[in-house]
Amino acid sequence: MAYADAARSAAGDERALVLEEKGRLSLRPFEIVENLGPRDVRIAIHTVGICGSDVHYYTHGAIGPFVVRAPMVLGHEASGIVTETGSEVTNLAVGDRVCMEPGIPDPSGRATRLGLYNLDPNVRFWATPPVHGVLRKSVVHPGDFTFKLPDTVSFAAGAMVEPLAVGVHAVTKAKAAPGHVAVVMGAGPIGLVTVLAALAAGAARVIVSDIDAGKLALAESLGAVTPVDVRSTSLVEAVSAATGGWGADVVYECSGNEKAAAGVFAPLAPGGVVVLVGIPLAPVGYDVAAAQIKEARVEHVFRYAHVFERCVNMLASGAIDVGPLLTRTFSFEDSVRAFEIAAKAPAGEVKMQIEMGI
Amino acid sequence: MAYADAARSAAGDERALVLEEKGRLSLRPFEIVENLGPRDVRIAIHTVGICGSDVHYYTHGAIGPFVVRAPMVLGHEASGIVTETGSEVTNLAVGDRVCMEPGIPDPSGRATRLGLYNLDPNVRFWATPPVHGVLRKSVVHPGDFTFKLPDTVSFAAGAMVEPLAVGVHAVTKAKAAPGHVAVVMGAGPIGLVTVLAALAAGAARVIVSDIDAGKLALAESLGAVTPVDVRSTSLVEAVSAATGGWGADVVYECSGNEKAAAGVFAPLAPGGVVVLVGIPLAPVGYDVAAAQIKEARVEHVFRYAHVFERCVNMLASGAIDVGPLLTRTFSFEDSVRAFEIAAKAPAGEVKMQIEMGI
Amino acid sequence: MAYADAARSAAGDERALVLEEKGRLSLRPFEIVENLGPRDVRIAIHTVGICGSDVHYYTHGAIGPFVVRAPMVLGHEASGIVTETGSEVTNLAVGDRVCMEPGIPDPSGRATRLGLYNLDPNVRFWATPPVHGVLRKSVVHPGDFTFKLPDTVSFAAGAMVEPLAVGVHAVTKAKAAPGHVAVVMGAGPIGLVTVLAALAAGAARVIVSDIDAGKLALAESLGAVTPVDVRSTSLVEAVSAATGGWGADVVYECSGNEKAAAGVFAPLAPGGVVVLVGIPLAPVGYDVAAAQIKEARVEHVFRYAHVFERCVNMLASGAIDVGPLLTRTFSFEDSVRAFEIAAKAPAGEVKMQIEMGI
Amino acid sequence: MAYADAARSAAGDERALVLEEKGRLSLRPFEIVENLGPRDVRIAIHTVGICGSDVHYYTHGAIGPFVVRAPMVLGHEASGIVTETGSEVTNLAVGDRVCMEPGIPDPSGRATRLGLYNLDPNVRFWATPPVHGVLRKSVVHPGDFTFKLPDTVSFAAGAMVEPLAVGVHAVTKAKAAPGHVAVVMGAGPIGLVTVLAALAAGAARVIVSDIDAGKLALAESLGAVTPVDVRSTSLVEAVSAATGGWGADVVYECSGNEKAAAGVFAPLAPGGVVVLVGIPLAPVGYDVAAAQIKEARVEHVFRYAHVFERCVNMLASGAIDVGPLLTRTFSFEDSVRAFEIAAKAPAGEVKMQIEMGI
Repeated sequence: MAYADAARSAAGDERALVLEEKGRLSLRPFEIVENLGPRDVRIAIHTVGICGSDVHYYTHGAIGPFVVRAPMVLGHEASGIVTETGSEVTNLAVGDRVCMEPGIPDPSGRATRLGLYNLDPNVRFWATPPVHGVLRKSVVHPGDFTFKLPDTVSFAAGAMVEPLAVGVHAVTKAKAAPGHVAVVMGAGPIGLVTVLAALAAGAARVIVSDIDAGKLALAESLGAVTPVDVRSTSLVEAVSAATGGWGADVVYECSGNEKAAAGVFAPLAPGGVVVLVGIPLAPVGYDVAAAQIKEARVEHVFRYAHVFERCVNMLASGAIDVGPLLTRTFSFEDSVRAFEIAAKAPAGEVKMQIEMGI
Repeated sequence: MAYADAARSAAGDERALVLEEKGRLSLRPFEIVENLGPRDVRIAIHTVGICGSDVHYYTHGAIGPFVVRAPMVLGHEASGIVTETGSEVTNLAVGDRVCMEPGIPDPSGRATRLGLYNLDPNVRFWATPPVHGVLRKSVVHPGDFTFKLPDTVSFAAGAMVEPLAVGVHAVTKAKAAPGHVAVVMGAGPIGLVTVLAALAAGAARVIVSDIDAGKLALAESLGAVTPVDVRSTSLVEAVSAATGGWGADVVYECSGNEKAAAGVFAPLAPGGVVVLVGIPLAPVGYDVAAAQIKEARVEHVFRYAHVFERCVNMLASGAIDVGPLLTRTFSFEDSVRAFEIAAKAPAGEVKMQIEMGI
Repeated sequence: MAYADAARSAAGDERALVLEEKGRLSLRPFEIVENLGPRDVRIAIHTVGICGSDVHYYTHGAIGPFVVRAPMVLGHEASGIVTETGSEVTNLAVGDRVCMEPGIPDPSGRATRLGLYNLDPNVRFWATPPVHGVLRKSVVHPGDFTFKLPDTVSFAAGAMVEPLAVGVHAVTKAKAAPGHVAVVMGAGPIGLVTVLAALAAGAARVIVSDIDAGKLALAESLGAVTPVDVRSTSLVEAVSAATGGWGADVVYECSGNEKAAAGVFAPLAPGGVVVLVGIPLAPVGYDVAAAQIKEARVEHVFRYAHVFERCVNMLASGAIDVGPLLTRTFSFEDSVRAFEIAAKAPAGEVKMQIEMGI
Repeated sequence: MAYADAARSAAGDERALVLEEKGRLSLRPFEIVENLGPRDVRIAIHTVGICGSDVHYYTHGAIGPFVVRAPMVLGHEASGIVTETGSEVTNLAVGDRVCMEPGIPDPSGRATRLGLYNLDPNVRFWATPPVHGVLRKSVVHPGDFTFKLPDTVSFAAGAMVEPLAVGVHAVTKAKAAPGHVAVVMGAGPIGLVTVLAALAAGAARVIVSDIDAGKLALAESLGAVTPVDVRSTSLVEAVSAATGGWGADVVYECSGNEKAAAGVFAPLAPGGVVVLVGIPLAPVGYDVAAAQIKEARVEHVFRYAHVFERCVNMLASGAIDVGPLLTRTFSFEDSVRAFEIAAKAPAGEVKMQIEMGI
């Protein structure tokens, strides 16, 4: 379909992938009336990635305090085409291929004004109850949170910017010097985007730990990566061998596993940095003395802020290639089945995406 | 005694306060032969503070992996008078009143060369087995770790530089902006020096929590301090009231209490900093999600580095007055009794010191 | 006059101090219609400080590209009383004593969203053509840029927050460790607020250079300050003497003098920081090699951002006392005369203020 | 020649490339007796790069205060083979292929102890009068400043670590976030290694300015580089076009040209960083107001510190390939001619190297 037809296609189809309640999805007409403000754009959705959080709402009906109490459209990793622009929008034009940042903060909140808009407690985030997601044909979104994709960045890659942003934000926090050695604990989607981000940001070597041989093999294919299967190999020994006994400059904990998180200081170098990216469900047994003897700096990330444009820049330059992470694509018509498959967490799948058919 | 006599006095007395074994102290002759290297100075000891670690070696015979296996002289918080200088020493002269940094790192260790000498695993630290402390009449020490006291800084204050350095190092790590609001958990000696350091470094208000009314009253006397007795008052509510609901910019955990340490994120502002100063004996139940939602930065301190000169500067300028923390002084002859008293952790005592009698 | 009457007083008087054109001031009725938006407050002005920029518009009719082309009300250092609040304002109430940040950025500008709102090119700043200042009885202002004064902070001190903010912002940028040694070049109003801010933020000693003995004497009265009259004394030698030859950790250039600014690296320590606060009119002869051999970090400040609340906190705690800088007060009726006097830059005057008479 | 023979070869040949005086070079026997200390290694030199500073000593007899007053061996960019190790050396073994950091600081200097050893005024640096360089068959060097090369890093690449370290140090100082846009002014050897370092450290695009089409073409071949010939194109406009008018996040000034250095703030983004790498001979006309309106941070570099290992890591991982910069190789026998050619600064040459023939 030509880009010029995207608006027509989107306008004529009000179907959405709706989580009716825990465990029950429908692809059905679902009207969401959205007015276009002067700083907004309307976007025909092209591609939407399936995130673990989408699947978790489907299988559990809630994530922590966020409970699905009414039918909600899923999806927040998206790319598309601008079909209409508000009167004050200057950075975008109809026909632009774009990706979108799914959280809209309150511009007058204190955290937002400090530049920490991801920490605004009033942020409205797609597919987080009660805010609808974007597994639908079109959406209205602020132009300031919509980013133009160069011709060389595909819609599939554009829809990967959202998860990639988490990894790039983590690496931005680490502020490691070029040529450093990093550890990434966990080779799931967030671990893998963190590997890509760390390599792009100057890691000379990334040591990745997991217990899944397939994920480790994928990680190894991404560049200067040393895979460590912690069922058979000691991560601490592997890091020690790679660094002459000094330790890793940065440890990214991306597994969300409490036991793994309790071990972040062991492979760390004196004066090193730990970034806690994964979200363990229970408190972690934190060894303060182990952190003190190395004067570790520990950073925490919550989503991301001011990262999307830089992600697009790196996809455009080739500094980051998300292609190896895109393992399967479904049509919008098959989207319920896509979630049924995703819910089974099939081996070998990293990122599944849905194409909306524009 | 005139300063000119210090060398003679020290030279004629080889007594030291010796921890013979767990629970048994002697004030007795104890020969330690120390040659003066070209970059060393010899110092007649004037005043030595009693630290919780000294008392712990006395009562327990060990701290973690450091076990007292042979008679060891206690004491590491010290001031004195230079009585002899090595041939290459240019920054000090005989007669100078000084305080001393008790840890001597390996100059060729990797951490040392990075400027992180406190993290050098080969550091030799006074009164940490098997290295002798300075509850004796004289010591040889590197000139680079010996700091001249201006006339306006007393020997008692000089012997407080060592514990003060911990607080100043913690505050240095926090890098908080002038006018910020800080929390200090724990009003023991380390909590109190952290309060002094935070106030000197630009905290407009320090909210101090403890369960000891006497310590809280002392803390309150130090300046713009709000005491919170957590037996009757919620720290989180007190911080919220003081900051319009925003939270504290920095939280210093100085209690070493696992339960307190588990609560560091609750009173913290978004984007705030936690400095873990106290050393809990057991792992802390660390709520990663609570830290992430505020993107907390967590710093850890291990002793201090590059801090002594700045501490002396602040004592000299009056920016910090350690006087209120000095609660009792003993003579060297009474030093065994001083430790017996200290071992009972009497209410109202903060810092007890021993004057060597030069 | 009771606070309750402030609104009535302000409402009944439309007089303002108007710069009709270069060199000609009038105190006359001057209608400015301002609607109260939902996030705004209306404030009866109590005290307004006279800034060098106000005087410069009066004497020169312009500052750089900002030219007075129509009658403009002067004044941007102000405190007052809230007389009306918009429907969404929650942090302020009628009767609150307040000070105000005079620049209002575009909330959707890119710099603003990054938290760097002072760098927004579309900022509207009081008494900067064509925006009117506040030498008038009332003003409407965003609640987010209006800060409540505690009872212990006078209106006069409140009106000093604006210039003080420049010094505190400069010190915030320096990020110097507690106990450091600073140099402040220039003992004018901005130099003096920088001295106050540096001392509050942990400078153990501030070495101030100027060529005016009166200003140096005032600087010396502010705390641990060493005055250096550079007509008779070498600043570099004074710093060397105070630091054992090492140099100052931070050099604040506040004179705006090209020759002084060219000398910032000479008194600096290796690894030190220079903050350029003054605004030289001509390019400065910058010795790159001198900066490189010390690997200086040079920071630049443009007004301030996120500083007012911290300034108020420090005035409230007593960490900063601006009293010694307040040298003369005029009534609103005398405001033309006040400017005539200020234009002569009389010796001994630091900050002149105008009380509006509410 | 087998590595095992390197020691024999080096031991039997005392020739060196000697700068007898300004303008006169000899390849002749030149005895330098060097004892092997316990922490030293002896290295047979394999490859030495020719640096602009070597050439400048040859053509001018001095660089600033460093004057050649006696015959001096040239060369400081070197790789080689360890032929002997001191008794305390544990990180290296005979036969190791290595590169060497040419500056040896005083370990007890204050800057050194702070970790800023490159700022130590007493550093002894190869081929800086009166210290001899390494265009000779062997040298004794501290093991701590000698770095093992993996098998995948050639001797030629190893001898490039020294100039590369300047670029990596500059990029380390910038601390730019991954995906940023950088400007590099000047496409000479230092500009080009800075381009390589910036790309490796996360620059999504580097805009390089010069007036030499050949150098710009080489720069463009290195990756996501936009060349700007400033004879025909405006750098500011090129940066504006590449960044939507926002400006570059980092500007590296590597030309050493006063006029170029005066223009560093024009292409810079608000809140951006300037790193001054080139060394202008005369003061630069520095526009303070232009820097203030963007609150630029300006960093200066002096050689490098703690960078060599990270450089080797990046050469080993393939993150940096210095191959395109190596334009010509000479034998040791031809080394006088190599300098004669280098002194003419021939177009198209970037880095010329000399192989010692072991």
